[in-house]
Formats: sequence, structure tokens, C-alpha cells
Amino acid sequence: MKRAVCLLSGGLDSSTCLAIAKHEGYECFALSFDYGQRHRFELAAADRVANAYGVVHRTLSFDLRQFGGSALTSALEVPKHRSLAEMGDGIPVTYVPARNTIFLSFALAWAETLGAQDIFLGVNALDYSGYPDCRPEYVEAFTKLANLSTKAGVEGARMTIHTPLIALTKAGIVKLGASLGLDFGLTHSCYDPDAEGRPCGSCDSCLLRLKGFAEAGLTDPLEYR
Amino acid sequence: MKRAVCLLSGGLDSSTCLAIAKHEGYECFALSFDYGQRHRFELAAADRVANAYGVVHRTLSFDLRQFGGSALTSALEVPKHRSLAEMGDGIPVTYVPARNTIFLSFALAWAETLGAQDIFLGVNALDYSGYPDCRPEYVEAFTKLANLSTKAGVEGARMTIHTPLIALTKAGIVKLGASLGLDFGLTHSCYDPDAEGRPCGSCDSCLLRLKGFAEAGLTDPLEYR
Repeated sequence: MKRAVCLLSGGLDSSTCLAIAKHEGYECFALSFDYGQRHRFELAAADRVANAYGVVHRTLSFDLRQFGGSALTSALEVPKHRSLAEMGDGIPVTYVPARNTIFLSFALAWAETLGAQDIFLGVNALDYSGYPDCRPEYVEAFTKLANLSTKAGVEGARMTIHTPLIALTKAGIVKLGASLGLDFGLTHSCYDPDAEGRPCGSCDSCLLRLKGFAEAGLTDPLEYR
Repeated sequence: MKRAVCLLSGGLDSSTCLAIAKHEGYECFALSFDYGQRHRFELAAADRVANAYGVVHRTLSFDLRQFGGSALTSALEVPKHRSLAEMGDGIPVTYVPARNTIFLSFALAWAETLGAQDIFLGVNALDYSGYPDCRPEYVEAFTKLANLSTKAGVEGARMTIHTPLIALTKAGIVKLGASLGLDFGLTHSCYDPDAEGRPCGSCDSCLLRLKGFAEAGLTDPLEYR
């Protein structure tokens, strides 16, 4: 059984991505990060999803608040909108500098010690949040780096970064997750949940999620506040 | 004054690299990592060196022992030799999977929040320890990734990874550090120090350091056990 490291935030995308990796027959090792994010509630969701799929799950801790620079890791406010049309162009303040590069680096480290040559990353370039480290050219550059940087790569192993959602809309992701039996009630997408973890319904992440469910003709089981 | 993030382990190479960045007139921000390394004594050295140069210094913590796979982060023994001639070919067991990729990712995150476009990394490809993530092609691939992954890169900033030691021998590094007034007594290179932090003199890192001093015609001020 081929092993794969699956980056798992506990959100809609990464949970669907894990469901795909399982469906494709990989032995999955889920990896989450406690990086000082405002929406730490997502870690409980990652636990629930990993448990539901019966996969090994590790959470690595480090504190990106030491650097700040994002609404997710500093006192900057998370923008709220009445609709997606209000979302600005460009890279939003919820962008966390170098986050996916940090996440993929750790995934690469774990993959190498596991003897895995596959990493699953739930980025998508359509209906996305404007983050530069979710684009195909970024993933391609990381793959090249991975094969140059590791012992496995030098010895001839070829790492593949799977991004099965990259060309899907949010509606497409919701439909795919549903078709694979993913329980969306286990997941968490909101950047700014209340003390009970209930999603706000008006941050970029909530709006994109709600749009996905609406366009897929499905109901989001989460209770919004 | 241009800002630079300088990766600082507290060893000979990274300390010399910091001295170079200072000499070149950068406002330096030194970054160290407490990653569960066996030779945690190097962190005190990093503190000493950063203080000597009066630079801002942050240490980020995460635990690579969760992954293992290296003599520096697991119960595997650090190999000892009577001379460098005994050092094996290939990638040694002290290689830590994806370590420089992880370190550079964090440096990139900090650089972006500081508005810095320069990162200093003390790798060298001659007289090195056989690590794949110390080669020029690796550094080039990371630079490409950096410019694709960040908001600054998308907006046109160009990140430079400076590797001023990459083509030097250890003797050349020692001579350069000495010419810049670096106090080598502040630094620490050993992978397997005793409880007082005294270097073993027989791990790859100690042997390379001692060779460097010998060939430079200088005396290493450290007291070996």
C-alpha cells in the first residue's frame, strides 16, 4: 500500500482531499499545524476528520504570531462581507506569509521519513482566496525543490504533490466530497469563529464555502451564528 | 538600511555568514530553530553571536523528533571517526529530512513581514557534509519558489538567497570569519557535545571544523573534551 502525507486543516478542501487520497488507495498520514491561527477550532475538525477516516494524524506546533503579518496570526481584523461580490481583488489580509511553503516543507520531511513519495494538498485555483501559494506554478516549483532537497530525491525517488482540487470550483469540491461520503458536519472553514467554534458566515472562507454548497444544490450542515 | 534575515545556527558557517551580512551593511534579523536537535547547545551559541553583533534574534520552536529519521533528531548514534578520511561517501545519518527547506520557509515568512528581500544562508558545497540541501541548484530552486509563493513576489519583489560561503573551503570560511573579527569562541559546531557543551572532536562537524582551522593556520579557541 503506497503511503501519502495529506495536509489536513480540517476545512472543506483538505478534508475532501483526504477523502480522495483514501479513495485512491493510499495509506494516509494526515498532518495539521497549530501555528497560532485565530481559527484554532479547525484543529478539532482535523481530528474529527482524521478519526472518521481512521488515519494516523499528527499536529505540529510552532508560533507564526512571532512574525505576524496576517489577519490570521495577528491583531489585524478578519474582513467581513455581505456577499462575495464585496471581496476585494488581490491578495487579502488573511494571507499568511509563506504558509503553504512551511506546511509543504514539514510534509516533505515526514514523507521522507515514512518512505512516502506522495503528498496531498487541497489547494484550488478557482474560487480561491487570492493566495499566491495555491497556484499550479507554485506547486510545480515546490515539486522541483522537493526532488533536489531530499536524500530520497538524490537517490532517484520522485515526489509527487497531488492537488486534485486545483481546477475545481467550490461547488465541484462539495459535490466530489459528497460523492465520496465526506461528512461535512465534521469540517470547519471559518477564519473567525465565536467561542463555541460557530462559523461567522461572512468571512471570505465562509462565503466561499456557502457559495459552493449553494451552487452544488446541497445544504451545509454547519450551524452558522 | 536594507533588511536581511540571517539563518543562524550558532555554528562556524552561519556565524561567519552573519558577519558578512553585517559587513555588507544589512540590518540583520537572525533566526534560529529549536527543533529537537541533539546539539541544542548550539542555540546558546546563536544567542552569543547575535548579541555580539547586536542584531534582533528570534528562535522558533517545533519538534522534528515527531518525524525522526536523523541521528540529530532520534536515538540513532552520531558517527565518530578518527579522521575525515574515515567519513563515508554519500548522505550521512546526520542528514535531517527537509531541514533547510523548513528553515528557509520560516526565513521567507519573516522576510516578508519585515519587508526584507534578502536571506543569508551559510551553506557550503565544498568541505561539506554531503547534505543535498546545501547545493547551488537547491538554492536556485528555493529562490524560484520564494518568488512564486509570496505576496511580495507576486507584487514584483525579488527575493535573493545569499550563500556567500557556498564555494569556499572550511579553511576559507575560517580565514574570512577571522578577517571580519568573528570571535570563534562564541560558536558551536559539534553534533554530540557533552553535558557541559564541550565538543567531541570526532563527529563530522567537529572534524570539518578542525580541518578548517588547521588548513587556515589558525587555532580553534574551543576546548575539546
